[in-house]
Amino acid sequence: MTIPTDPETGEFVRSPNHFAARITADGRDGWPVEPGRYRLVVSRACPWASRGLVVRRLLGLEEAISVAVADPIQDERSWRFTLDPDGRDPVLGIRFLAEAYHAADPAYDGGISVPAVVDIPSGKLVTNDYPQITLDFSTEWTAYHREGAPDLYPEEHRDEIDEINQAVYRDVNAAVYEAGFATKQSAYDDAYSRLFARLDQLSDRLSRQRFLVGDTITEADIRLFTTLVRFDPVYHGHFKCNRQKLSEMPVLWAYARDLFQTPGFGDTVDFDHIKRHYYQVHEQVNPTRIVPKGPDLRSWAEPHGREELGGRPFGDGTPPGPPPAAEAVPPQW
Amino acid sequence: MTIPTDPETGEFVRSPNHFAARITADGRDGWPVEPGRYRLVVSRACPWASRGLVVRRLLGLEEAISVAVADPIQDERSWRFTLDPDGRDPVLGIRFLAEAYHAADPAYDGGISVPAVVDIPSGKLVTNDYPQITLDFSTEWTAYHREGAPDLYPEEHRDEIDEINQAVYRDVNAAVYEAGFATKQSAYDDAYSRLFARLDQLSDRLSRQRFLVGDTITEADIRLFTTLVRFDPVYHGHFKCNRQKLSEMPVLWAYARDLFQTPGFGDTVDFDHIKRHYYQVHEQVNPTRIVPKGPDLRSWAEPHGREELGGRPFGDGTPPGPPPAAEAVPPQW
Repeated sequence: MTIPTDPETGEFVRSPNHFAARITADGRDGWPVEPGRYRLVVSRACPWASRGLVVRRLLGLEEAISVAVADPIQDERSWRFTLDPDGRDPVLGIRFLAEAYHAADPAYDGGISVPAVVDIPSGKLVTNDYPQITLDFSTEWTAYHREGAPDLYPEEHRDEIDEINQAVYRDVNAAVYEAGFATKQSAYDDAYSRLFARLDQLSDRLSRQRFLVGDTITEADIRLFTTLVRFDPVYHGHFKCNRQKLSEMPVLWAYARDLFQTPGFGDTVDFDHIKRHYYQVHEQVNPTRIVPKGPDLRSWAEPHGREELGGRPFGDGTPPGPPPAAEAVPPQW
Repeated sequence: MTIPTDPETGEFVRSPNHFAARITADGRDGWPVEPGRYRLVVSRACPWASRGLVVRRLLGLEEAISVAVADPIQDERSWRFTLDPDGRDPVLGIRFLAEAYHAADPAYDGGISVPAVVDIPSGKLVTNDYPQITLDFSTEWTAYHREGAPDLYPEEHRDEIDEINQAVYRDVNAAVYEAGFATKQSAYDDAYSRLFARLDQLSDRLSRQRFLVGDTITEADIRLFTTLVRFDPVYHGHFKCNRQKLSEMPVLWAYARDLFQTPGFGDTVDFDHIKRHYYQVHEQVNPTRIVPKGPDLRSWAEPHGREELGGRPFGDGTPPGPPPAAEAVPPQW
């Protein structure tokens, strides 16, 4: 995989999301909400895609929106369905996610990214606009939410959620990549400084409240979680985000364990996919492609003590049941 | 720097030490002990060379054996004196350590390593045989030891010290390199497993006694220390020795801090040299040559509590005074 960086500044340059149509209840972009019609393509390695896995689980959208899990190791054609029999996604019938991109736009020659939502009847990619995908699961698919589904994007807190999401995106979700993919020391130093300053600030906030906004789990927690869960296995070493491990930042570590142990979070996480993806795909960072054996992950199961801060994880709702058998991840330790 | 590995097994192949003459009190190899005659060439980055720095300090050999500190960044001609005015060692008058190797053997085309002991009058390398160099400082240079110098290689414990040194060499000192330089997963896995099994065993031993052998500091502690002090800044991330950080292994971490805070140990350590060397020289491991900003090193100064185990660090001797002003390392945090 080629990692695009600015030759002048040494900064990582993230590709824009080209396909930004929305699937809505009113179908105004031509893509109406319709159970069974769309397939969410993810990699369990990818933090952006994993947001969708968590939200789908929390809202109980497993039957309404099916999921395809790509091989964590991309080749030069990007994400592949090599985990499936004959190397084809059994529903879309394609071998590479790129086929759905090209079905939507034969001339497209940009990046092939997950999450991607594909229209099953036509085989066309609808959207890879990850920040909108999860919000639309919350706000447009309400007719198909399970009973007891939480409100992950409550009206009265949207401004605050949006504001936190923006800061977390810039200084956490994206900053770890900017640190790891930097080709100049100054670009790395800048990303590292922003990252840990923001983590300190989030830690301070979370020392007083169980969740980031209000007293329930929201979209803001999900977006922070998918970066935190990758921190010690990957970002600390591979991306040189090494002021401390997550496990050495007591508030954030307990917060991350609280979420991990909540149904819908930890049951979407496959550390094997995560580690193999980063260490084997980014040859510019890790030329030997060797995957570290550490760290010991069993501590994710340790008590977190966050109940003492109060909070109602699912608000007036309830936790989801276990994942569908076909989607269960293997035991993680 | 090219890292030699076995194409079949992916294992790192360490170069042998070619120059193994000994400087002895009786001068039987042609190199008699003589104060002011020899120069110890080191890099403060290098764990093998740093053994010599510690032993020289503990024994008070600073005036008898002068020291030259090479730039932590080697170029294709290996160790350079680019930290000195005009890029020349002021005593030997050479720009590259290789010049002393070639003065000793014009046909030599092997590796150029530190520590190296050079005969100042002739400019010839005498020895780069690092396991013997420190033992000879202890046993052959006794006439020039300071008053109160400890016995780092006591007769009655030599068998035990040799045995521990052998295990520590194989499974700790060398294993971190074998993990980091492995080009195949199996070679890495093997080194990682040996490393952490041995660290567990050493931790168990050190939970009951303050030092590795007997109740005083010996050569065995010095050889373990120079690897442990590099563990969190370099080996944990750069060499993928990441089951835990040293700071997450309570016994070994307290043991390492105890030694670090002992005069003659921490005052030889330059974390800046250590980090820049590994991260900038091993381009096969870290192609971007970016040096991580972490970890936070201030915790090296925290109380270690090891006095409770008893032990007499210097036996019947005393700690050394501060290092000569010209050899002081900059403040480390």
